[in-house]
Amino acid sequence: MPPLTTHELARSLHVRNEAKIVMLVADGLGGLPHDPAGLTELETARTPHLDQLAQRGVLGLSIPVKPGITPGSGPGHLALFGYDPLEYLIGRGALEATGIGFELGPNDVAVRANFCTLDATGCITDRRAGRISTEEAAPLTHRLRQVRIEGVEVFVEHVKEHRFVLVLRGEGLGGNVLDTDPQAIGVPPLAPRAADESSQATARAAAEFVSQACRLLADQSKANGVTLRGFSRRPDLPSYEELYGLRAAAIAVYPMYRGLARLAGMRVLGQPQTLAEQIDLLAAHWAEYDFFFLHYKYTDSTGEDGDFAAKVRRIEELDAMVPRIVALRPAVIIVTGDHSTPSLLRSHSWHPVPTLLVSDCCRSDDSAEFSERACLRGGLGQFEAKYLMLLALANAGRLSKFGA
Amino acid sequence: MPPLTTHELARSLHVRNEAKIVMLVADGLGGLPHDPAGLTELETARTPHLDQLAQRGVLGLSIPVKPGITPGSGPGHLALFGYDPLEYLIGRGALEATGIGFELGPNDVAVRANFCTLDATGCITDRRAGRISTEEAAPLTHRLRQVRIEGVEVFVEHVKEHRFVLVLRGEGLGGNVLDTDPQAIGVPPLAPRAADESSQATARAAAEFVSQACRLLADQSKANGVTLRGFSRRPDLPSYEELYGLRAAAIAVYPMYRGLARLAGMRVLGQPQTLAEQIDLLAAHWAEYDFFFLHYKYTDSTGEDGDFAAKVRRIEELDAMVPRIVALRPAVIIVTGDHSTPSLLRSHSWHPVPTLLVSDCCRSDDSAEFSERACLRGGLGQFEAKYLMLLALANAGRLSKFGA
Repeated sequence: MPPLTTHELARSLHVRNEAKIVMLVADGLGGLPHDPAGLTELETARTPHLDQLAQRGVLGLSIPVKPGITPGSGPGHLALFGYDPLEYLIGRGALEATGIGFELGPNDVAVRANFCTLDATGCITDRRAGRISTEEAAPLTHRLRQVRIEGVEVFVEHVKEHRFVLVLRGEGLGGNVLDTDPQAIGVPPLAPRAADESSQATARAAAEFVSQACRLLADQSKANGVTLRGFSRRPDLPSYEELYGLRAAAIAVYPMYRGLARLAGMRVLGQPQTLAEQIDLLAAHWAEYDFFFLHYKYTDSTGEDGDFAAKVRRIEELDAMVPRIVALRPAVIIVTGDHSTPSLLRSHSWHPVPTLLVSDCCRSDDSAEFSERACLRGGLGQFEAKYLMLLALANAGRLSKFGA
Repeated sequence: MPPLTTHELARSLHVRNEAKIVMLVADGLGGLPHDPAGLTELETARTPHLDQLAQRGVLGLSIPVKPGITPGSGPGHLALFGYDPLEYLIGRGALEATGIGFELGPNDVAVRANFCTLDATGCITDRRAGRISTEEAAPLTHRLRQVRIEGVEVFVEHVKEHRFVLVLRGEGLGGNVLDTDPQAIGVPPLAPRAADESSQATARAAAEFVSQACRLLADQSKANGVTLRGFSRRPDLPSYEELYGLRAAAIAVYPMYRGLARLAGMRVLGQPQTLAEQIDLLAAHWAEYDFFFLHYKYTDSTGEDGDFAAKVRRIEELDAMVPRIVALRPAVIIVTGDHSTPSLLRSHSWHPVPTLLVSDCCRSDDSAEFSERACLRGGLGQFEAKYLMLLALANAGRLSKFGA
C-alpha cells in the first residue's frame, strides 16, 4: 500500500467548529538585500503590526515547491491551498483562462491562442503578428466570436496584444491536443492533432475554428492567422469543503487569484479594488465562512519592477491594514507569500518565503519581528508550503487525532 | 498522475547560460567533538578562506539519504549529484568495479569475487583464503585471465588481498544472479543461479568461470576456489547533460570518485595526484565545462583512521586552496561532503553534513564561519542532499520558472 497522502489525512481527520482562519497572501513577499550584507525589503519596511503578530505567533520559511524551484502563481497558490503543486498541474490554457477571470466548466477545453501573420501560401511570417496592439487586436477577437462549430460552444476572450483565450465547450472534449504553433516562421501552422482518442473531437473542433478564423481575418493586414497552444481542461481539484470541511471565501482584486481560488472551490467575494475594500468584504462576510484567502498583489508587482523602495512601501501599506484583520479575532491568522519576488532579481525566485502563523496554541518562538532573518530562526522551521493548510487546521482545532 | 519528480522538473526547466558551478566535496567532512561539549574537526580547524565564503554565502546541513542513515560513497555521491540514492541503486559488483576504475559498459555484469580455500570434497574451509596477501593473490587473478567463455568476454581485476572483480561482457547478460558464497564453511560454494529469465546466460557463464577457475587454481594451496557475490549491471543514470544541460567535469584523485562521476556522464579530467594538481586542471579546463566536481579524499581517510588532529590538518590544507578556486570567479561555489566521518567513530556516519553555497543571490544568512554549529543555523536549513543540484542550478540562473 502506498503511504497515506496529506489529502487522505485531511479528508479523514477534519472536524468542524466555529474557529475562523484568515490566510493573507502577500504575493512575492520574500526578498533579497541589494547589498548582500544588508536588509531585505521586508526587513527594511516598518511593520509594527506584523511584528506584533510575530511576537504572539510562530514563524517559519515555506518552500513553495522544492528547494531551488521557482514557482509561477499557479503552483505557488496551489501549494498554499494544500495541493501538491507537483501533482496538481494546471495546463497553460486553463491558467490563461483563469488569469482573465474566465470561469472554466467541466466540459471546457481552454487554449492559449496567438494572432499571427501568414503569407499568400499560408506560411507564418510573424508568430506574434508584430505584437499587434491591444487596441487593434481586441476587435479582431470579437470578430472571431462569429465562429460556429456544431455541437461545440465557442468562447473567445482577448488577453493582451497578440494573445487571446479560446474555450471550446462540449460533451466529451479531451484536453490532449498538440500545439499548432510550429515555433518557426516560413512554415504553415500545424494542424491540431489529438494525442489521445478522447481528444479527437477537440482536434476537429480546433481545426474548424482555425479554418473559420482565417476566413474571418482574411481581409486583415495586421493579423490574418491564429496559432493554438496549451490545450487543457480545468484541473480537477478536490474542494476546500471536501478536503478540509471549510466554507472558504476568496477576496482578491486580480482575476488570476480569484480564478485559482475558484478552482479550489472557494467562493469569490465582491469586486474589491483596494486592500481596504478587501477588508470591508472580509468583515461583511465574516459570519458566513470559515476560511478567508486574502490576496495582496503589489509586493509581487513592485518586486518584478525591480523597485526595492516601492516594495517596502507596499509592505508598509499591508501592515497598516493588519489591525483591522486582528480586530475580527480570527482563531488563526497566517501571513505568507506564494513565492519570493526579490526586487534584486526582478522576477519570482526559489527563495523560501517568510511565513507567520498566530493562534492561541501555536507555540510561539520568541520572535521579535516579521523578517526573513527571524523566520529562519522560527518555530515552524523550513517546510514545504503544501503543509501549511494542515498547520492552519490544527491550530484552529479542526483536525482530530490520527490513529488511536 | 503521479507527482512530477525532481528529475522531470530539472529536465524541463533547465536553461543554459555562461554561469559556472564548482562543487567541492570534502569526503566525510562532517565530524563530532571528542569531548561532547567541545569542537568538531571543522570547528577546530583554522579556515579563514572557508569562513570568508561562509560570510558571503548561505549555510546548511545536508542529509545524505534520510535521518539516521549512514551512506557509503556510492549513495553519498549520487545524492550530491542529484540522484535519489534510494531510487538509483548501484549494485555491489558495479560499485566494486567502479572503485578500481574499471569503466563498465552497457553489456557488462560486474561481480565481487573472493578467493577461498576448498577441501578435497569441494567444501569451503576458509571463505577468505586466510586473507591471502595482495602480493600472493595478484598473480592468481592474472592466471584467471586465461578463462575463456564462448560469446562472453571475461575481465579479472585484482582489488586487495582475497578480493577481485570479475566482469562478464556480452549481449543480453542480465544482472540478476544470486551470490554463490554460502556464508558458511564446511559446505561447497553454491552454483550460480539466475533470479530471472534474462540472467540465465549470466548464470551459465558464471558457472563456467568458476569451473575453469577451480582447474586453474587446483595446484594452489593458499587459494584454490572462488565465490561470487553482488552480480550487477552498470546503473542507468540519466546524464548531467540530459538532466541539467550542464557540460560536467570531474577532477578526482581516486578511482572510486572518478568512476561515480563517469556514471553521471561527467568527463573525468587528467590524473591528478594532489589537490594543487586538481586545481591546476580546474583552471586549465575552466572554459570547457559548466560544472566541476572536485573530490578531496583526506577528510574521510583521516576520519576513518580516528585521527582528529590529522583531519583538522587536512581541512586546513583544503582551506588553503580555496582562494585559487574563488579566483576563477565561479557563479556558484558549493563546499560540502558526501557524508560525515567523525574521527570519534572511525567510520562514516549519519550526521548531517556542513554545506556552504555562495552566489550573488543566495540570501546570505549572517554566518560568521564554516562549522557544524554555524551550518545548523544556516539559511539552507537541513535539507536532503538530493536537492543540492536544484539549488546550484537556481543560484546559477539555470532554472526557469515552474508553471505560469
